[in-house]
Amino acid sequence: MKYGVIGTGAIGGYYGAKLARSGQEVHFLLRSDYEFVKEHGLQIDSCDGSFHLDTPYIYNKVEDMPQCDVVLVCLKSINNSKLEQMLPPLLKDDTLVVLIQNGIGVEADVQQMFPQAQLVAGLAYICSAKSQPGRVNHQCYGQINLGNYSCKDAAKLQQVLADFNTAGVKAREVDYEEARWKKAVWNMPFNGMTVALQTQTDMLLKNPATRQLIYDQMMEVVTTAQHLGVKNIDETFAEKMIQTTDVMVPYSPSMRLDYDFHRRMEIHYLYTRPLQIACEAGHPMPKLEMLEAELKFMEQLNLLNFPSSACSVSQGARSKEQGARG
Amino acid sequence: MKYGVIGTGAIGGYYGAKLARSGQEVHFLLRSDYEFVKEHGLQIDSCDGSFHLDTPYIYNKVEDMPQCDVVLVCLKSINNSKLEQMLPPLLKDDTLVVLIQNGIGVEADVQQMFPQAQLVAGLAYICSAKSQPGRVNHQCYGQINLGNYSCKDAAKLQQVLADFNTAGVKAREVDYEEARWKKAVWNMPFNGMTVALQTQTDMLLKNPATRQLIYDQMMEVVTTAQHLGVKNIDETFAEKMIQTTDVMVPYSPSMRLDYDFHRRMEIHYLYTRPLQIACEAGHPMPKLEMLEAELKFMEQLNLLNFPSSACSVSQGARSKEQGARG
Repeated sequence: MKYGVIGTGAIGGYYGAKLARSGQEVHFLLRSDYEFVKEHGLQIDSCDGSFHLDTPYIYNKVEDMPQCDVVLVCLKSINNSKLEQMLPPLLKDDTLVVLIQNGIGVEADVQQMFPQAQLVAGLAYICSAKSQPGRVNHQCYGQINLGNYSCKDAAKLQQVLADFNTAGVKAREVDYEEARWKKAVWNMPFNGMTVALQTQTDMLLKNPATRQLIYDQMMEVVTTAQHLGVKNIDETFAEKMIQTTDVMVPYSPSMRLDYDFHRRMEIHYLYTRPLQIACEAGHPMPKLEMLEAELKFMEQLNLLNFPSSACSVSQGARSKEQGARG
Repeated sequence: MKYGVIGTGAIGGYYGAKLARSGQEVHFLLRSDYEFVKEHGLQIDSCDGSFHLDTPYIYNKVEDMPQCDVVLVCLKSINNSKLEQMLPPLLKDDTLVVLIQNGIGVEADVQQMFPQAQLVAGLAYICSAKSQPGRVNHQCYGQINLGNYSCKDAAKLQQVLADFNTAGVKAREVDYEEARWKKAVWNMPFNGMTVALQTQTDMLLKNPATRQLIYDQMMEVVTTAQHLGVKNIDETFAEKMIQTTDVMVPYSPSMRLDYDFHRRMEIHYLYTRPLQIACEAGHPMPKLEMLEAELKFMEQLNLLNFPSSACSVSQGARSKEQGARG
């Protein structure tokens, strides 16, 4: 199978390179790192064993890329509107598109752009970061869960899972809705609150007031998911997420890194869309609504001060995403 | 009548000095400024005409003070536990105690300390600040509203109102519950949010997301007050508070100043107590709950960094309180 990777950063660089090393044909789209990788190849420093791709298939324009059987979309979700232009050259009738992205609603929106596309959600549980041009530092974890959104070709989805596992990446199929909402239980409180209070996960849990607040926000997500009919999610899951985070090293989620580097934050798919969905279902999430407003306020000032980097597609800060749930 | 003033800062210094200048016998309790005022007197720089008290009655221990007919309590509410020791020397059987303080619940708690005391809420609409030792800068406004909490001596309350008006301070009687809750409509959103987002009133209203959030928080207070049976309060009052603040100069409420100077914030009476009251009444205020948690988190770090000033009784930052509502 031919794989395409849109967004060769901490996530796309890692998973694409693992597949390529195991013998899959992988075509990488790069932007700022294109010239560097053309000359030096792609380096993966990994806790599971480092390796180097000397001459990966790389491109700096989607128009030059071949049609693919599977496309891994690893852009930050703030750039998803660009997919309308970026995806078509890679798509065949039966291409499977895996959206390895944060938040709720990405699949629905991409499906609207491409009604015929076969979409799968990719939920990455990995700590990795782009440390330099053409160089990814994979620190720990690495599992990817796939949730079927609109793929009718069950055999192909199984093949992708098999390819990942053959490549040394733990991959399994999960229930789409359950997986997205469960990931939101951790993501929505911690991503935003570490920005709002300029802190890390450990400090939020050490202070009794914010520990309770994090739990309250988690329960807003849990009860909304229950209200929407999502299965296997209740308060014990929120408690487990708190306990899991208690034993993590102090941690800055991707949104905190985006803020610190004056990049746009993934407010839309991490907050705005799930809040809309919750509101439309008659089950608002007031504390997460407030968090969204605070983040919008902070982002406006943050980008005003450093407008030049506001539109960067850089993946560096995706990093470490969801070590919390590993 | 004999007046006592506990806390001779931006508020107590101003109102006490106005009464003294008009001929009332006013006894001031001072702490850090005692020696300075003993030597130099008390200076009021005021938009309504500046003046100087050469030899006010001043004390640095409550035990030295006489029993008074009226006591104006102008401490920050974080120090209210000290009233248990401070008030008794000033109290006669029929002393009227005016609590010129922020928040909800101060009267109930002081009443528990002194079940026989006749308590009145003082709601100050004034921009003033202690600019130097023994010197208050009164910039604008100045009205004081009195709400009867437990005063059985109607004539005395009227006399206090008359004394204020004679002294050139606009004073009128208002409904206790209505006044306290209406003040909270402005105080609860703006005091905390200017701290949480390190900003001022104008910026909060310019950003559409936080403008909506401020309105939502105001409506949490309005609907709680309605739920508690408070009269004459509905969404038009919240809208009026937004409009009033729109035309104010950019403004840092007292809590923002307290935070900036690493002083303890009035979280308890501005948030914790009204949130308790709302919860017990079965009408929680989730966005203000979240704000309380954020403030507790921020205060802990803020005082850790500068523990020395944490217990200051300084009134400097009371200042400008409620220009918004003037």
